[in-house]
Amino acid sequence: MERLEPKETNILKLETVDLCDEDSSLVIIDQTLLPGKIQLIKLKSAQEMWDAIYLLQVRGAPAIGVAAGFAMYLAAKQIAAGLLSGLEKPEDATWPQMPLAELLSQKAVTDRYTLTEPHTGSFEAFYQAFARQKEYINSSRPTAVNLSWALNRMERLVLSMKEAPVGEILKALLQESVTIKEEDTAVCKAIGENGLTLVKPGDGILTHCNAGQLATSKYGTATAPIYLGQERGYNFHVFCDETRPLLQGARLTSFELQSAGVDTTLICDNMSAMVMKNGLVNAVFVGCDRVAANGDAANKIGTSIVALVAKHYNVPFYVCAPTSTIDYHISCGDEIPIEQRKSEEVTEMWYEKRMAPEGVKVYNPAFDVTDHSLITGIVTEFGIARAPFTESLARWRHE
Amino acid sequence: MERLEPKETNILKLETVDLCDEDSSLVIIDQTLLPGKIQLIKLKSAQEMWDAIYLLQVRGAPAIGVAAGFAMYLAAKQIAAGLLSGLEKPEDATWPQMPLAELLSQKAVTDRYTLTEPHTGSFEAFYQAFARQKEYINSSRPTAVNLSWALNRMERLVLSMKEAPVGEILKALLQESVTIKEEDTAVCKAIGENGLTLVKPGDGILTHCNAGQLATSKYGTATAPIYLGQERGYNFHVFCDETRPLLQGARLTSFELQSAGVDTTLICDNMSAMVMKNGLVNAVFVGCDRVAANGDAANKIGTSIVALVAKHYNVPFYVCAPTSTIDYHISCGDEIPIEQRKSEEVTEMWYEKRMAPEGVKVYNPAFDVTDHSLITGIVTEFGIARAPFTESLARWRHE
Repeated sequence: MERLEPKETNILKLETVDLCDEDSSLVIIDQTLLPGKIQLIKLKSAQEMWDAIYLLQVRGAPAIGVAAGFAMYLAAKQIAAGLLSGLEKPEDATWPQMPLAELLSQKAVTDRYTLTEPHTGSFEAFYQAFARQKEYINSSRPTAVNLSWALNRMERLVLSMKEAPVGEILKALLQESVTIKEEDTAVCKAIGENGLTLVKPGDGILTHCNAGQLATSKYGTATAPIYLGQERGYNFHVFCDETRPLLQGARLTSFELQSAGVDTTLICDNMSAMVMKNGLVNAVFVGCDRVAANGDAANKIGTSIVALVAKHYNVPFYVCAPTSTIDYHISCGDEIPIEQRKSEEVTEMWYEKRMAPEGVKVYNPAFDVTDHSLITGIVTEFGIARAPFTESLARWRHE
Repeated sequence: MERLEPKETNILKLETVDLCDEDSSLVIIDQTLLPGKIQLIKLKSAQEMWDAIYLLQVRGAPAIGVAAGFAMYLAAKQIAAGLLSGLEKPEDATWPQMPLAELLSQKAVTDRYTLTEPHTGSFEAFYQAFARQKEYINSSRPTAVNLSWALNRMERLVLSMKEAPVGEILKALLQESVTIKEEDTAVCKAIGENGLTLVKPGDGILTHCNAGQLATSKYGTATAPIYLGQERGYNFHVFCDETRPLLQGARLTSFELQSAGVDTTLICDNMSAMVMKNGLVNAVFVGCDRVAANGDAANKIGTSIVALVAKHYNVPFYVCAPTSTIDYHISCGDEIPIEQRKSEEVTEMWYEKRMAPEGVKVYNPAFDVTDHSLITGIVTEFGIARAPFTESLARWRHE
């Protein structure tokens, strides 16, 4: 993994996820270093990609989807080049719980994984290796549907080209991954336009976690109405929940918005009731990792509490969700798996200083599910879905 | 201010607030250093007391009340000894916003404040100096009613002894301050007994902030039912909200409870909905800084959100409040002043590492008010008040 300095320091003028080095590497902004340092990192292997997702160096469902598309293209290229035909999981590996330092070391790959024979040229061998890489990357975060969505899209493309030479498949995969990114930008912009119809100049807006430009290829989802409004002189007043334990709201959202000149106020997660009670919030916009067919929405832990508070104070609560985030196979939120993360995220400040006694138990779910009854509207690129969501969401099922 | 090492490292066997050095100093546990280090500090002047309250070295409404009683006794003794007849606020002082380092330095006192003539022996001069010290200490935290309650109690005693020699007044003030502490212990124990009737062995209990032994002279308020239940083998499972920005739940409550052998799980403030949704919480117990006559309760920021979440998931929500916390002069919570604190508490981790961009605005209220409609019961030393609170609380007005 190579680190490099950006030529630009305004986050909004940087690409969150992109290909570089003549399409041989993926480059991302290392979001774990923000807001203190803007640093780009180059990723060249599926392992580096897995780590970057697990460590939240790249995060946000849409950005993960875009990165996964590029990663599968790079993996396919490496498979084709006979560099790597697939990663076998060794029997004794503590995968995926091996130490992070080891995970980050390229040496771990050759030590712990068996490199099987190079790709022989047949489609079957190519596809088997491709599918193993796909499954591996898919294991990095279980909740975000965009990850498997993008991986499946790349896989479907491969399966549709059984008769084609591998070179053609690679060309098509590159095009597909670029398309995923371009679509994401267009989708975010459309969500922004739709969301903007729900607010008026001078409004107060509250958001939770980071569903901003850093979570997508451009504009963000929850922030898209804010950025478009900013361009049009709406002068919103935005409150950002800091979003414990990883402080994406403090580190990323308030940073992004401030760099774009938006009037931004940071609050702790337990202060949303105060700002709403004081009449400072006209609408809540949050992002979303997965929406069930009935409108239940999984998003960063704490989102359901913001929704409860908004309902109590009669503030409309909007979930900004690309339709790729809607999982029609899941009838309600109870079926969405919730990732549990390490206790050190809560007990130690960025692994530096202990803020809780040694040995204390910690419960650290990364997401919660907001019941559809608490959601005023789901803002997608095609329009705004309102209750009953099972019907309003169904109309986009085959778009 | 003198720092010293404790002979005991189990918090429950230490005194949160006490007199020492033959009743010439106040000794407290410096709560800003927990859970990393248990250190006692001696306070000898009203300035040191003001700083200790403002800096949250001593905190929790009851403990502040106990400390304020002792502080007024010490101040009276110093006045009587002619050491200090009162602090005059100089015209140019940025009081009380002078730099903390300066506040902590005894030198600041002589530099910035005018020492007026020593007490001449007349009651009037003694009382004037006493009242100035009282007003000064009262300015350290505006929300907690126990502070002014204890100060007024000490002042009333002085005013009732106009004809007595100063030596008699001092003796009576010492007795009164000791009584305040003993009463607090008895009150906490009674709250524990009453609270214990609301839960059963094996229950899950959620608490917010620290209304524990460290916030009182003994047992705590919200933790009193937990400690008494622990002694009787109830085996509670306790969830502690970490309580941003100052993490009293992580640093103090989980530390206290763990040291007493209670099964303790730490969560971030935005996770309470998850544990309640999963059926892990049978009751919420929180402390309280001030209760209005109608039952509205001011407590640490975020408490009202816990109450909203509890209501949504049908979990009973109990406020543990000594009757000294009930302010019958205030008809509803809107009249309770809410302290706003420094933005650095949110943007910097304990003043060490920046977690938010430079210059971002911060809204940092220290408390919020939980509407009485969200409160299942208010647990006092005399019993449990339930709705309608205006009536149920009124019966203790003259106790």
